[in-house]
Amino acid sequence: MEEGLLSKRSKYVYNILLEEEGLASNLAEAGKKVVKLNRGDPAVYFKTPKYMIDAYVKALRSNQTYYSRAEGAKTLINAVIKRYKEFYGLALSEDSIITTEGVSEALYFINSSLINTGDMAVIFRPYYNQYMTTLELHGGRPIFADYDERNMWAVDLDALRKSLKSARSNGQIKRVKYMLVTNPNNPTGTVLSRRILSGLADIANEYGIFLISDEIYDEIIFNGAKFTSISEVAKGMPYAILNGASKNFDATGFRIGFIIIPEHDRLSSELKSKMSDYARMRLSVNTPAQYAVAEGISNSKEHAKAIKEMVSEIEKRINSSVRILRENEYLDVVRPNGAFYIFPHIDIKSLKFRNDKGFVEGLLKEKLLQTARGSGFGSPAHFRIVSLATESILTDSMKKINEFCIKHAR
Amino acid sequence: MEEGLLSKRSKYVYNILLEEEGLASNLAEAGKKVVKLNRGDPAVYFKTPKYMIDAYVKALRSNQTYYSRAEGAKTLINAVIKRYKEFYGLALSEDSIITTEGVSEALYFINSSLINTGDMAVIFRPYYNQYMTTLELHGGRPIFADYDERNMWAVDLDALRKSLKSARSNGQIKRVKYMLVTNPNNPTGTVLSRRILSGLADIANEYGIFLISDEIYDEIIFNGAKFTSISEVAKGMPYAILNGASKNFDATGFRIGFIIIPEHDRLSSELKSKMSDYARMRLSVNTPAQYAVAEGISNSKEHAKAIKEMVSEIEKRINSSVRILRENEYLDVVRPNGAFYIFPHIDIKSLKFRNDKGFVEGLLKEKLLQTARGSGFGSPAHFRIVSLATESILTDSMKKINEFCIKHAR
Ligand SMILES: Cc1ncc(COP(=O)(O)O)c(C=O)c1O
Ligand SMILES: Cc1ncc(COP(=O)(O)O)c(C=O)c1O
Repeated sequence: MEEGLLSKRSKYVYNILLEEEGLASNLAEAGKKVVKLNRGDPAVYFKTPKYMIDAYVKALRSNQTYYSRAEGAKTLINAVIKRYKEFYGLALSEDSIITTEGVSEALYFINSSLINTGDMAVIFRPYYNQYMTTLELHGGRPIFADYDERNMWAVDLDALRKSLKSARSNGQIKRVKYMLVTNPNNPTGTVLSRRILSGLADIANEYGIFLISDEIYDEIIFNGAKFTSISEVAKGMPYAILNGASKNFDATGFRIGFIIIPEHDRLSSELKSKMSDYARMRLSVNTPAQYAVAEGISNSKEHAKAIKEMVSEIEKRINSSVRILRENEYLDVVRPNGAFYIFPHIDIKSLKFRNDKGFVEGLLKEKLLQTARGSGFGSPAHFRIVSLATESILTDSMKKINEFCIKHAR
Repeated sequence: MEEGLLSKRSKYVYNILLEEEGLASNLAEAGKKVVKLNRGDPAVYFKTPKYMIDAYVKALRSNQTYYSRAEGAKTLINAVIKRYKEFYGLALSEDSIITTEGVSEALYFINSSLINTGDMAVIFRPYYNQYMTTLELHGGRPIFADYDERNMWAVDLDALRKSLKSARSNGQIKRVKYMLVTNPNNPTGTVLSRRILSGLADIANEYGIFLISDEIYDEIIFNGAKFTSISEVAKGMPYAILNGASKNFDATGFRIGFIIIPEHDRLSSELKSKMSDYARMRLSVNTPAQYAVAEGISNSKEHAKAIKEMVSEIEKRINSSVRILRENEYLDVVRPNGAFYIFPHIDIKSLKFRNDKGFVEGLLKEKLLQTARGSGFGSPAHFRIVSLATESILTDSMKKINEFCIKHAR
């Protein structure tokens, strides 16, 4: 065993976005005050709603501290059923919902249960980093498709069709296990249109690819955008929705997510039952948190109030940040209408940086602003700003970004 | 993709112990009252200590609801450091502890990071079911060794040495990635002696095998037994301890576990840093629960009281159950001195059952007692009783088991 302890697969479990963390820690230790614009964690900036905390406390005080049903406490499952009925007119049965330790665990379950070594998945760039990690960890490879920045980050359906056609003609299509779309998107903040989603569903159907939509930000929608769930356009075909409490319910630290598999075809049924086996393997999700999230969902009056307040704040913060960044001739910014990220394109050739890594490191060292490099999302020459801090911190930070670019102009 | 959606590995994610669940549910739906002696969940039977619930509530009320440090909140890490110092004289550094979503997640991290397809691990029978699932899920195969029932379930060190010697001579030894011992054991309730543990450490050292000790029950010790942690005998060699809040802290539903890697050799260091990458991949463990467990550990006065009460109850329940079972000439029972399980041997050939499955199903259908078949732990002709219910329920149940055996004698 001496030659190498670690497994080959484990090399994929590494996040380049964390390289900046080391630099940031060093600065902090040297007494510098770094402004963190890199953590997609609403609960740091907005208090988790009190009615949910109350429900959490009630569950604790009434001894809900044992292993729950592996697939999730029935109270929570029923709340999720009600939500999907009310929001999207979707009729879910109990067994179509598996509760997970965040969408993070859902991604592990999905990849472990679907991907054999050499299998593929359609991943859209820029992607949420963990998609690639969990895919590659399980021996999978991506077929990349792109969200098109010149077209408001919409999916270029023709390009996607083309690359799947070529996968079909070279025989690879049999190994394409799923297509994973993020709506609204991290890192771009884009809400996909119904037309694009219908197109994706058609394509997935045509090529026999299991369609997965990560809708973890489905209530963080603003600037007049209208959200469409994949469940509204993918009827009668095998698909899954990922969702959870982290963002919409401002409860990242609860670690509650869901895999929802609405249909009853053979593929959907097999996957549902396997997800239940995976859930049982790790016994349970945090039990009292499930009751908090059940209340979070069921108490629609309190939730409507909480989400409205949070989203209108996010909208303000995003828009005032974008306004300032648009004064910057070295950046191109598509205005987000969902989630809480801004993902500017950097005109690298007009600046004295070799790439987005240099840009982000420079910004951190000089201006003490921590952002995330686009290459961590598969899109170099970009960087991601989390727009959750207060408006005054954000305004101040965006101005610093503009100064920084001017200073480093070629 | 049509031919087969699921990955090959996913077939291992299946627990035969859950087959009885279906039968039990059917009985329950038919209005029968099944006594569940199959759930190793103390929090169903003993209230999680109030001082821990108070700390949990305090964390919630003070907005500890965001993603924590991926490897665990510093407060919790420091509590674990203090515990190991006080209990075992072990000096741990911060980076030697990774907080996980129960020992369940620890097992996933360990196997994913260590096992390549075709690698092996030494697994002792009877084993905790999840060990095999997570090993095989990652392409690993067991080299079985046995806890020796005729010798109070101690490890037969000579037999172990023999099988490793043969693995060395046929070249397999290079692929043996770890040896995983459980102390106290689930399902036998055995506490291993210092002599056996020293022997295991010597053998692991001699053969260059990473030694892992699952010590999740290390404070549930009774009948005068003395517990030895692997850390007391494995000094200066690469090893890991698994532990958590589920059993000692009577908090299964919190989902808090630990991987502890005390040493600083190359293997230990590589694994520590990879465990941190795994932790970061899934962002965080439930945050407020970590503060509850930190208090659970740190408040040693309250904890001492709580654990003493629980263990003395468990001791009573185990011993009165064993006393009754020993009147049964068809069963052989080694008296447990740790955890809360009894694992009787069934004299199958004197009974009208083909195997432990038939026995356990019969007991469920006729006497409405749900236990777990030994074959689920790799030891057929046994069954596992969880001895956590009240003494009167247990006494009554053990008598029913005795009646059941007499009735089905050949
Ligand atoms: C698109 C997306 N999916 C999934 C996650 C994981 O979230 P969690 O594990 O907290 O549910 C995140 C977190 O940032 C995300 O942005
Ligand atoms: C020996 C052993 N290890 C690990 C576990 C998993 O416990 P958890 O994931 O709750 O920490 C159990 C649970 O019964 C167990 O008996």
